[in-house]
Amino acid sequence: MKKIGVLGAGSWGTALTWLLTNNGHEVTLWSIMEAEVEMLRTKREHTSKLPGVKLQESIQLTSNLEEAMADKDVLVLAVPSPYTRSTAQKMAPYLKKGQIVVNVAKGVEEHTLMTLSQIIEEELPEANVAVLSGPSHAEEVGKGLPTTCVVGARTRQIAEYLQEIFMSPVFRVYTSPDVLGIELGAALKNVIALAAGVADGLGYGDNTKAALITRGIAEISRLGIAMGAHARTFYGLSGIGDLIVTCASVHSRNRKAGYLMGKGYTMQEAMDEVKMVVEGVYSAKAALGLAEKYGVEMPIIAEVNKVLFEDKNAADAVNELMQRMKKDELGVELWDDEK
Amino acid sequence: MKKIGVLGAGSWGTALTWLLTNNGHEVTLWSIMEAEVEMLRTKREHTSKLPGVKLQESIQLTSNLEEAMADKDVLVLAVPSPYTRSTAQKMAPYLKKGQIVVNVAKGVEEHTLMTLSQIIEEELPEANVAVLSGPSHAEEVGKGLPTTCVVGARTRQIAEYLQEIFMSPVFRVYTSPDVLGIELGAALKNVIALAAGVADGLGYGDNTKAALITRGIAEISRLGIAMGAHARTFYGLSGIGDLIVTCASVHSRNRKAGYLMGKGYTMQEAMDEVKMVVEGVYSAKAALGLAEKYGVEMPIIAEVNKVLFEDKNAADAVNELMQRMKKDELGVELWDDEK
Repeated sequence: MKKIGVLGAGSWGTALTWLLTNNGHEVTLWSIMEAEVEMLRTKREHTSKLPGVKLQESIQLTSNLEEAMADKDVLVLAVPSPYTRSTAQKMAPYLKKGQIVVNVAKGVEEHTLMTLSQIIEEELPEANVAVLSGPSHAEEVGKGLPTTCVVGARTRQIAEYLQEIFMSPVFRVYTSPDVLGIELGAALKNVIALAAGVADGLGYGDNTKAALITRGIAEISRLGIAMGAHARTFYGLSGIGDLIVTCASVHSRNRKAGYLMGKGYTMQEAMDEVKMVVEGVYSAKAALGLAEKYGVEMPIIAEVNKVLFEDKNAADAVNELMQRMKKDELGVELWDDEK
Repeated sequence: MKKIGVLGAGSWGTALTWLLTNNGHEVTLWSIMEAEVEMLRTKREHTSKLPGVKLQESIQLTSNLEEAMADKDVLVLAVPSPYTRSTAQKMAPYLKKGQIVVNVAKGVEEHTLMTLSQIIEEELPEANVAVLSGPSHAEEVGKGLPTTCVVGARTRQIAEYLQEIFMSPVFRVYTSPDVLGIELGAALKNVIALAAGVADGLGYGDNTKAALITRGIAEISRLGIAMGAHARTFYGLSGIGDLIVTCASVHSRNRKAGYLMGKGYTMQEAMDEVKMVVEGVYSAKAALGLAEKYGVEMPIIAEVNKVLFEDKNAADAVNELMQRMKKDELGVELWDDEK
């Protein structure tokens, strides 16, 4: 039994609190909003973000960050990516040296092009930062449906320690040293989900969507390799696995925003309709910045940016992507007659 | 303009005939069944297998194989995989030396463990065999929806020649030298689609399905590498791309058969209900044979075989797969502290 503080009571933070409590751990769930804590305390359920999942009586609820962080074996950071830096800054005074902090949010900071673990390490240099990611809708985890994730950490020892803590018969956890690859796949998949949504909105079929997903992970992988990540991570659970779940889901805000743009909505109209933060819109800009910084060709990312920020017609963008002249799938060096 | 013979008037052969004619080629479509040829001739439409797609007047229809093969630049072989060998044998007397034959069916022969191109090369040693594969529902191709495929050939010259022939603004063709990898991905994806269908039938969610797809392509890729194929092919259009389309589709017979087994049907009951050839059932046995022959661990393939042929309970199989103890996603050698 470990003592765990979960910081952030959105759908994922709440589902992980439920999971970790089921696993026998002593969990404190923190939200910055007193009203949210009060609702959780009285209803024992997050009625808007994770309805139907009853929070166990042993869970402690608080809006006091110092209390949530005090004397914990592990902290799980589950605030949305735009708040990762500010939350890490608030955490600094209470952080003990070597504290394990597992970030479970996804994103890349637009102006610095930093991943979330890099931000946390900058703000909390004494923390031991790890990440958890994979194809894991919170609603399904909260129903106990079989789910797999990957935990990435700086050492194998930390990764296996966290694996033991999160693992259950229906929640399988793999370990990986490739923190950067896990974070890039998780952050950039939302941009591809936007593109897949656009194709759906245009009335295109499964063939088009599968092409965008396949070529999309290929370009994310090219960027990741240029940045020092492992190619295989992008073809694992936190890469293609998470991308499949996002593009297939009717719940995905990114896919839905893309769908509306495919139907002719402007970006702002689509964002207003979806009513929630559409991560892919922010990640699209950051992805383009990374592509330029590392000199990697990312045609899908580039077209999504044009649709989002230059009023390019969505149908034109998808059609141009599909008609790009690219002859060889693997690279010409593999032909025997080219050697 | 090329002269092309398409052998086999199922949904895919018919859709490709329509596509190639649209591209300006002179196409002859052959079926072994005189009644099918008569129906196509009078209705100019394959009313059962590709309804709604009107066949152009210039298309020639025949049940005479010699006529279909005479004086053609390219032959497209589109018969279901159980008939590939017998059709190739029938073609032998009329085949000219160096004839390009593009196989578009998918499968592995159960008792020989040969891929379809290997079978054709055995039966027609004077043919120049190529393959075409990718995420391409025939119904969507017949509607002109954007689609991507890969053509694999023994030389770059042949691959690019075929690319020119098949390519259109809505049908993008990549080239690849990895004929084996393309064929293995195409054939074995159906077994993973069966497993994904079982998970759906059990009421599991998108998280479980994404895990099965991701781990599924990883094990197909392990086998392919052991057999000499290129790893990247399995993460391309003919591998993960085609697998995504198959697992997402409500039309897939393999997914549907799995779904019914997840609901408690026996294999025979599921096959009777689906009423068509369920390729995955045959490919499952062949895949297991290949796994044993090449000494590759393929847990999903193994469990699907137990469900199909040893009456193993489908829920037990999926649960055991999800609970398999596998610690590391990429391999322990990547940890810095293990070096």
